[in-house]
Amino acid sequence: MMKGEKVEDNRKKKLGTEEMVRKETLCRQVKIAGMGRALAGKEIRFGSQIRYRLQPGQTLLDLAVEAAKQALRRAEMEIDDMDCIVCAMATPLQAIPCNAALVHERMAKGLQIPAIDINTTCTSFLSAVDIFSCLVDSGRFKRVLILSGDTASAALNPRQQESFELFSDGAAACVLTASEEGETSAVLYSRQETWSEGAHDTEIRGGGGLQPVFDMDGENREDYYFDMKGHRILKLCAKRLPDFVERCFKEARVTREELQLVVPHQASRALGIIMPRLGFSKGKYIDRVEKYGNMVSASVPFALCEAVEMGQVKRGDLILLIGTAAGLTVNFLLIRF
Amino acid sequence: MMKGEKVEDNRKKKLGTEEMVRKETLCRQVKIAGMGRALAGKEIRFGSQIRYRLQPGQTLLDLAVEAAKQALRRAEMEIDDMDCIVCAMATPLQAIPCNAALVHERMAKGLQIPAIDINTTCTSFLSAVDIFSCLVDSGRFKRVLILSGDTASAALNPRQQESFELFSDGAAACVLTASEEGETSAVLYSRQETWSEGAHDTEIRGGGGLQPVFDMDGENREDYYFDMKGHRILKLCAKRLPDFVERCFKEARVTREELQLVVPHQASRALGIIMPRLGFSKGKYIDRVEKYGNMVSASVPFALCEAVEMGQVKRGDLILLIGTAAGLTVNFLLIRF
Repeated sequence: MMKGEKVEDNRKKKLGTEEMVRKETLCRQVKIAGMGRALAGKEIRFGSQIRYRLQPGQTLLDLAVEAAKQALRRAEMEIDDMDCIVCAMATPLQAIPCNAALVHERMAKGLQIPAIDINTTCTSFLSAVDIFSCLVDSGRFKRVLILSGDTASAALNPRQQESFELFSDGAAACVLTASEEGETSAVLYSRQETWSEGAHDTEIRGGGGLQPVFDMDGENREDYYFDMKGHRILKLCAKRLPDFVERCFKEARVTREELQLVVPHQASRALGIIMPRLGFSKGKYIDRVEKYGNMVSASVPFALCEAVEMGQVKRGDLILLIGTAAGLTVNFLLIRF
Repeated sequence: MMKGEKVEDNRKKKLGTEEMVRKETLCRQVKIAGMGRALAGKEIRFGSQIRYRLQPGQTLLDLAVEAAKQALRRAEMEIDDMDCIVCAMATPLQAIPCNAALVHERMAKGLQIPAIDINTTCTSFLSAVDIFSCLVDSGRFKRVLILSGDTASAALNPRQQESFELFSDGAAACVLTASEEGETSAVLYSRQETWSEGAHDTEIRGGGGLQPVFDMDGENREDYYFDMKGHRILKLCAKRLPDFVERCFKEARVTREELQLVVPHQASRALGIIMPRLGFSKGKYIDRVEKYGNMVSASVPFALCEAVEMGQVKRGDLILLIGTAAGLTVNFLLIRF
């Protein structure tokens, strides 16, 4: 072991500053090889706000599979090239089995690869890229298909205007692989925290083990709808987000100026107020809330995918994916695209 | 890069056979530093079979937190020592937020650590140890608290005797940390596969995006109950499990004889038929189906924890955790305890 440690020591000395930083920030040599997205078929409007909801006969599983197939095509790969399917979604398609098993059935039946769900609600995609970039980097998996998306419309409360008019049903997907020699693509830094003093600011109280489906009656029906306390979320974010973002930039040793683009979770129409307060000027970040609304776990990958399609994101660009989720969970993920 | 590769090459030559194998099987230098378990308070009997169900006022969250506190005590650590909370559960406590956020609220409010859910139904604990052992090994996290458990009783169908009399409500938890110098504890090998031709053999069709809570009526009420096609599951397992297990042993370069103990998912009373067919003789594996039934995601960690308490598992023992889950997902996880 002593011998091994010495070799390690000598190698450290040879590392340049950039390499040192990469080691400290746990840089993972992975790339998003392809992305896809799909939108529910029914367009509705609330004033200037455009939203999309599932049409009769259309399911979120259809959209997720459509997005995943697009991601595979763009990565020039087949489902047989994948060695793991990950659903990074906030809500279940069925109560059992996990979402990824249902995607596996549609796309990969007969293929001996695992199907795993990761869930941190709205930032599930960021958590999945954070976690699975480590697993690709360590060799546990080689090529991972990550799918996000939720049937927001299934639990919207018509009596809560703020949330009823905010959400869309959509899906997005990506293929995550190891970077090839000479490619700069990487996950450069990630941080995630849960501030559980906000655990009940965004919730659906019913439908799980604490308040089962069969307990629903005329009295408590509201508990099974999505419930958002927008003002409390904004207050908690205003109090704690700026410090979180500062700490992340410091640890990642990156400045806002170095970023080509910021892709925030499309949480609400307050995005245009919060982002400048966090030091991101208009034009530096994507705001499609008017065009698409909040697509829960699909928001960030959908916006990133569209930006890639529009040529707004190119290989080698430094991109920040950032978001808040029910929990209240915050996620900061810095990638070299 | 050339220089680095040469160093790498020289190091490889110096590695002994055991170290080579460890590299190939992705050995992770982690240990289960402490475990805990908790059982629902109401004992019921179906013939010789003992089952436990939640008492009025008792929740699965209570049990999970109790198990986690016990795991921390036994690891001689505090919640402040953890840098990630993972819920490896098959079912949600609430539809939103994720389970780990609710655990965070109970145990870690104010602590700036993430709360993440991992779900592969009954083998969620094995998936979580598989994934987070890689993350601890790579330095992404240092000490992870993993909790498993489900409110099985919330969705049991009194008209399906086979499953109604099978399940118990329980929870288990562990603290996963890096092994210290000189310790042999490790995750030696892991493999997971989903055979989605069995995706609908174990399911709760309703309650998610495909068939929302609000669609429940007198006609389709059965869809919201747990539904198990025991015979089909057994047939699929009989067809594909033996080959899977053989492949794993071969890849892991371990024989059944080297194992001190096998901890299988306590899937059903058929355990005593399946395990010998897979080459595990009685006494070599834990079978507590009569005593506890199937505790969904808690089954494996609960059984492992009890075995540690009884002195049946000691530090340095070679232990196989193995299980099948809805999906149909199979998990093989080899650890040096």
